[in-house]
Amino acid sequence: MKNVRLTQTLALPREFRASGIAAGLKKSKRKDLALIVSDVPAVMAGVFTTNQVKAAPVKLCQKKLRSRRARAIVVNSGIANACTGLQGYHNADRMAEIVANVLGLKSDHVYACSTGRIGVQLPMDIIEQGIHVAARQLSSAGGYDAAEAIMTTDTRPKYCTATFRIGGRTVRIAAMAKGAGMIEPKMATMLAFFLTDAAVQAASLQSALRQAVADSFNRITVDGDRSTNDTVLFMANGAAGNRPLLSPSHPDWGVFVEAVNKVALDLALKMVADGEGATKQITVRVLGARSDREADLAARAVANSLLVKTSWAGDYPNWGRIMDALGYSEARVEEDRVDIDYDRVPAVRNGVSAGTDIEKLKAVQRQKKFAVEINLHLGRGSATVYTCNCTEEYVRINM
Amino acid sequence: MKNVRLTQTLALPREFRASGIAAGLKKSKRKDLALIVSDVPAVMAGVFTTNQVKAAPVKLCQKKLRSRRARAIVVNSGIANACTGLQGYHNADRMAEIVANVLGLKSDHVYACSTGRIGVQLPMDIIEQGIHVAARQLSSAGGYDAAEAIMTTDTRPKYCTATFRIGGRTVRIAAMAKGAGMIEPKMATMLAFFLTDAAVQAASLQSALRQAVADSFNRITVDGDRSTNDTVLFMANGAAGNRPLLSPSHPDWGVFVEAVNKVALDLALKMVADGEGATKQITVRVLGARSDREADLAARAVANSLLVKTSWAGDYPNWGRIMDALGYSEARVEEDRVDIDYDRVPAVRNGVSAGTDIEKLKAVQRQKKFAVEINLHLGRGSATVYTCNCTEEYVRINM
Repeated sequence: MKNVRLTQTLALPREFRASGIAAGLKKSKRKDLALIVSDVPAVMAGVFTTNQVKAAPVKLCQKKLRSRRARAIVVNSGIANACTGLQGYHNADRMAEIVANVLGLKSDHVYACSTGRIGVQLPMDIIEQGIHVAARQLSSAGGYDAAEAIMTTDTRPKYCTATFRIGGRTVRIAAMAKGAGMIEPKMATMLAFFLTDAAVQAASLQSALRQAVADSFNRITVDGDRSTNDTVLFMANGAAGNRPLLSPSHPDWGVFVEAVNKVALDLALKMVADGEGATKQITVRVLGARSDREADLAARAVANSLLVKTSWAGDYPNWGRIMDALGYSEARVEEDRVDIDYDRVPAVRNGVSAGTDIEKLKAVQRQKKFAVEINLHLGRGSATVYTCNCTEEYVRINM
Repeated sequence: MKNVRLTQTLALPREFRASGIAAGLKKSKRKDLALIVSDVPAVMAGVFTTNQVKAAPVKLCQKKLRSRRARAIVVNSGIANACTGLQGYHNADRMAEIVANVLGLKSDHVYACSTGRIGVQLPMDIIEQGIHVAARQLSSAGGYDAAEAIMTTDTRPKYCTATFRIGGRTVRIAAMAKGAGMIEPKMATMLAFFLTDAAVQAASLQSALRQAVADSFNRITVDGDRSTNDTVLFMANGAAGNRPLLSPSHPDWGVFVEAVNKVALDLALKMVADGEGATKQITVRVLGARSDREADLAARAVANSLLVKTSWAGDYPNWGRIMDALGYSEARVEEDRVDIDYDRVPAVRNGVSAGTDIEKLKAVQRQKKFAVEINLHLGRGSATVYTCNCTEEYVRINM
């Protein structure tokens, strides 16, 4: 039996409730306000954008996270509350405070997140009314509504649930995310919320989350842009009743980490597959670099090359553009050692055409999902980046 | 009177001849082979791509340039002769040799350049026949044909002529270039050829060219990709009869450098204006960075952000995306000090909206040409980058 079962559902763990409603922030009248609550005290972990320009709610969450305690998360989509100055910070703070008042919680334990347009202030009257409505609709089945309410240009909600056993008890990690555009390395206009009923030591939760983000959300790129609002929060409320607290010395720590990683990678790949305008999901794997770091630089140069990404929108496997991107990457590349395969079909050997029938390569590139494997033959460094193609639709969405 | 007169013509300097013909490399049957010849011995300077993956003709030119001597340049478009291995290098060498044989020159003095698709070998029979035809058509009025023959996805030929006086004699610098896609910092699928009848010391010619390239072709970006073939060559044949040789100690060195810089910037801006799918030309100026280098990093982050470039394709002045790009650039940025103007109309003050009527900003962004000026207010570093917007047409061209 597998240790961790991953399902494409959003089954909230014990003592969590959620809701998602249309408060009126979006012209489209779609859902735009989500509320997630733990009915018992929980610990919180968080990872945030590395952008020097940080949205007000990011600054606020970073401050609140010092206590490692949490009871609720409120999220709005449509307006990012970024580049909004002191007023923006007060509004984010007030958003959390309204939730605290309505639910009878300490304001310190309520986290606020935003995603959407930059440079616009939140209309606090709409937010306040929305929070009242969302609070009334909280339910253990409300995860789906919440997952919809955090969407911006996403075409579908993204979630999954991992089920596993800790100390004889069944526990869950349920998670939801939004992505779409502005997605690159150090996270992007992406929000993700992980919820578990496992009892976890706060510092251990933080380190598990940090590692999982490094191997998932930080391995994807849609357009090379990194956003002001990226936030991943992880709430653990211990309602499963496992004792002692999970930490690296616990015999079941391994299975917990495995579950966190699986959930994170599942959501990250969903983000890439739903990248703005994307029609294909491509895995770029670099082997044989002088170091893992150089492999990463090479993989990102390829995955972020606009010429490579647009060529993936067509049928023709334009491997010359991949060679070009490798050449200007900051990784050491020796042209006549480079091999490139498309799903194990050789395209390049020793820096020149492998002589494979072009129709075979076209057949690979026509797929919705394929891998480009690059071997630099210079060392043992390797890295994988997940990305998507760039279509005319991407431009239309962002005009 | 101005020292240097720049005209939108391609008047070859004394003792230069050129031609451009359709050899049959392009499916479109358009011109694809250019020949440029000096009928008297000339000195040569050259600047090449910094990509680690270099096309065969780039490697060949770099080798030939050691002698600093030249008589002719042969250029084909349609095929880049990059990632073609030893065979490709032999072909580039052979291409120069054929020209030498046909024109009775030393092969060492003939330079070969290519631009077009990567990974394909040159069909040498077509090249050879083409060179014979091109040689017969050489003429002092043939510059225009040559400028057409080096085009790939360019929509129009790019050239200009500078006229000025050196030691009492009228001399000229005539230059042609091709650009369009794959254009970033350290040059791109761009070729440029400068010709002058001034007598210039070879080493001085090299330093003048290097500086001019740094301030022009290396200040433009279309899509952030750098190519395998970028080449700028500068031939000076001394037919104007000025003596002594031009070098930094010559009283007229200043006017010569001024002319080189003017020609280079003129061609660089033409490349941006004709960027693949581009409909607008944008100047990104960063002031107040901690250093010129940081200003450059910040300006390039903005100019290469796909989200910024696609927003320029629309009407809406989405300055939030500029803030975002500044934030993830490697330049130090303090959000609440940033000012952004669109053609002197304030958009951002201290990191938040300047409160300007959005219609005023839209009016600026609707123009074919405008400047975004960013002041980081952290120091005295400044940099300017010239770029264009990214449209759906860019994706169509590169699919």
